[in-house]
Amino acid sequence: MADTAGASTAGASTSSANMMRILLATDCHLGYLERDPIRGQDSMRTFEEILQIANRENADMILLGGDLFHENKPSRETLMHTMELFRKYCMGSRPCALQILSDQRINFPRFGKANYMDPNYNVGMPVFSIHGNHDDPSGEQALCALDLLAAANFVNYFGQAQQPDDIELVPICIQKGSTKLALYGLGNIRDERLHRTFLKKKVKWLAPDEDTDDWFNLFVIHQNRCAHGERNYIPETFLPDFVHLTFWGHEHKCEIDPTPRDVINTYITQPGSSVATSLSEGESVHKHVGMLYIRADKSFRITKVPLKTVRAFKFRDLVLAEHLPAGATERDVGEFLAAEVETLLRALDSEHRARYRDDAEARKQMRLPLLRLRVEYTGFPTLGAQRFGQRFAGKVANPKDILLFYRKRTSKPKSKA
Amino acid sequence: MADTAGASTAGASTSSANMMRILLATDCHLGYLERDPIRGQDSMRTFEEILQIANRENADMILLGGDLFHENKPSRETLMHTMELFRKYCMGSRPCALQILSDQRINFPRFGKANYMDPNYNVGMPVFSIHGNHDDPSGEQALCALDLLAAANFVNYFGQAQQPDDIELVPICIQKGSTKLALYGLGNIRDERLHRTFLKKKVKWLAPDEDTDDWFNLFVIHQNRCAHGERNYIPETFLPDFVHLTFWGHEHKCEIDPTPRDVINTYITQPGSSVATSLSEGESVHKHVGMLYIRADKSFRITKVPLKTVRAFKFRDLVLAEHLPAGATERDVGEFLAAEVETLLRALDSEHRARYRDDAEARKQMRLPLLRLRVEYTGFPTLGAQRFGQRFAGKVANPKDILLFYRKRTSKPKSKA
Ligand SMILES: [Mn+2]
Ligand SMILES: [Mn+2]
Ligand SMILES: [Mn+2]
Ligand SMILES: [Mn+2]
Repeated sequence: MADTAGASTAGASTSSANMMRILLATDCHLGYLERDPIRGQDSMRTFEEILQIANRENADMILLGGDLFHENKPSRETLMHTMELFRKYCMGSRPCALQILSDQRINFPRFGKANYMDPNYNVGMPVFSIHGNHDDPSGEQALCALDLLAAANFVNYFGQAQQPDDIELVPICIQKGSTKLALYGLGNIRDERLHRTFLKKKVKWLAPDEDTDDWFNLFVIHQNRCAHGERNYIPETFLPDFVHLTFWGHEHKCEIDPTPRDVINTYITQPGSSVATSLSEGESVHKHVGMLYIRADKSFRITKVPLKTVRAFKFRDLVLAEHLPAGATERDVGEFLAAEVETLLRALDSEHRARYRDDAEARKQMRLPLLRLRVEYTGFPTLGAQRFGQRFAGKVANPKDILLFYRKRTSKPKSKA
Repeated sequence: MADTAGASTAGASTSSANMMRILLATDCHLGYLERDPIRGQDSMRTFEEILQIANRENADMILLGGDLFHENKPSRETLMHTMELFRKYCMGSRPCALQILSDQRINFPRFGKANYMDPNYNVGMPVFSIHGNHDDPSGEQALCALDLLAAANFVNYFGQAQQPDDIELVPICIQKGSTKLALYGLGNIRDERLHRTFLKKKVKWLAPDEDTDDWFNLFVIHQNRCAHGERNYIPETFLPDFVHLTFWGHEHKCEIDPTPRDVINTYITQPGSSVATSLSEGESVHKHVGMLYIRADKSFRITKVPLKTVRAFKFRDLVLAEHLPAGATERDVGEFLAAEVETLLRALDSEHRARYRDDAEARKQMRLPLLRLRVEYTGFPTLGAQRFGQRFAGKVANPKDILLFYRKRTSKPKSKA
């Protein structure tokens, strides 16, 4: 804490007693591939970077959009290292400027108050989080890994609907100076079920008790945003007009710039995951977190903060028939694809140098990148992906699964975000 | 905290700025039988009682002797409820009178300091613990459940030997006024292995840096004390002369009164478990924790504190041939054993009334007891234990396994403590 607090950089000029500063991050998937000798620490390293950014940017709070953990029951190692990071970056004597005006016993039913209100703890950086589909409550007592972090007073876990078929959204009403934030959260529910609850008009939005029009209404949700079937997602049109900004978790592609929607009256920001958990095109977009600034007049802006610790990832779609003559052999295919990999590696290298032109330390630390060639092979032989990858061991973080062969008309593989 | 701290009762007259007050408890086995509809909360309820006693008796610290958890990987529910109890009873603004003079980075290698020394936490009741065989470290990083509690700053976990074949015991040197305690701890190691390490003179005891003779030397250990084979235990003769008191965990029978040993120069206290995890005779002895008082002149005493929340448990050894005529039928055996059960239940009832004669509330709250009839049946028919138990459902906490039949010459069943 002490070495970063107060050393605000990018956001310094916007700092004021009435400006609320919230770091937005989501889908950190802590523990993802933890046994992988190359990628095992990726999720944890980037989460540490996020906590460092929050402190450097002098955030009033961190807001997480779910899937903090990759596994519903994280390993002891993952739980332990997560707690060590919270302890290092979120405990501290830095005073918190956020006042909570709503009934905390309703906002945080299990513990009755926000973590920084407990007189036995110095919380320097409050973290608020909903759960995702990866770290959702289970068992008779409906506990999730976030409950353990809340019991240790590291996290303010909120937004667990008691009855998924009849939902009452009660905001956490937070004030800083003259700026008022009504924070609505809804932890992941099976998409079809929540879709139905919306259609049945059984999602009720409670307003703050007083001065309803003075509040900036922020909603955080963790559901499919892209349609996977008719009811297997939440259409943006379901968002009510009075919500000024929706923070959408679960979708791993970074689309963090707030997008105004044609048909609705709200902005949406989708920070995307902080670690790639699939080798799909969306995950290859450069990853960011956001600093959300809210003013008393309810205007807001989001500053994108690129994540430096994330492994670069190149995705390329190839159709063999467009590049190779009929009758090409397995060896021809192999040589062509290997040349493609080399081209991507060179491109990655020069992009890395360009990105960190002014940052010698980051420039030196290029991690092995992720590569995925998605290859349409109709009419050609395929290769063993593992064997192909062997020649790129030491150059690529995922040598075993660089190649993904498919044939036209097969549907794209879908992954759980 | 606030409702119990300062309200010292039994120990009040002995309180002074130079008297160290330590609550001794062990083998709490949190989570034992957690799915049992009758006994599921037993371990947790008694652990709560222990924390209440520590606060009522104004203890300076709690010292646990291992097996805090029953499972190496406690369920989320058990971990959660344990943390909730620590948070309720061990956090608080009560000042801690204990100074640590040794190098805390050596005593607590993972976190570098005792939990109440962290300026971001108000710890009202410091807890020190070694691990047992049930909650021992495992995995590549040698983590155990106590590490999670330590990461959340609830527990001071110590005594993990780095090399079980070459052990260096470094004391935690604790001072209160003019009283000095050198606390040595050794978490469980496989008995044969530790036995060998002792025989090879590879257990080294480091002395406090200064005034070696002024320290009260307390050693906490979690191993077999009873011989189970030639090398499968730690003989008391292995304890060095300079240790004033050994706190022996792992053995579940309460033998808490400090016993001076003939052949050695140390006292031993064995508090026993706080919950019965087997239906053996040793577990039927009434369960206690101890308040250990240490003075500056190195004199000490232990006050036994009976645990009120523990289920009463009657164990009876029976030999059918001593009670029934040859040729007795299954029905005769059943009637005889049922009558024995009824006799035990009546005895339990009057013992309970007598014990709580002056405590109306405790008297009213008699929990269903545990019963075990260990029956030598040579020459007689046996009964189905489950069916036999049905008629005592609602009267006994373990109806399904009241009966244990055996034949002469079979060895006693042994259980993992
Ligand atoms: Mn998700
Ligand atoms: Mn996700
Ligand atoms: Mn044990
Ligand atoms: Mn035990």
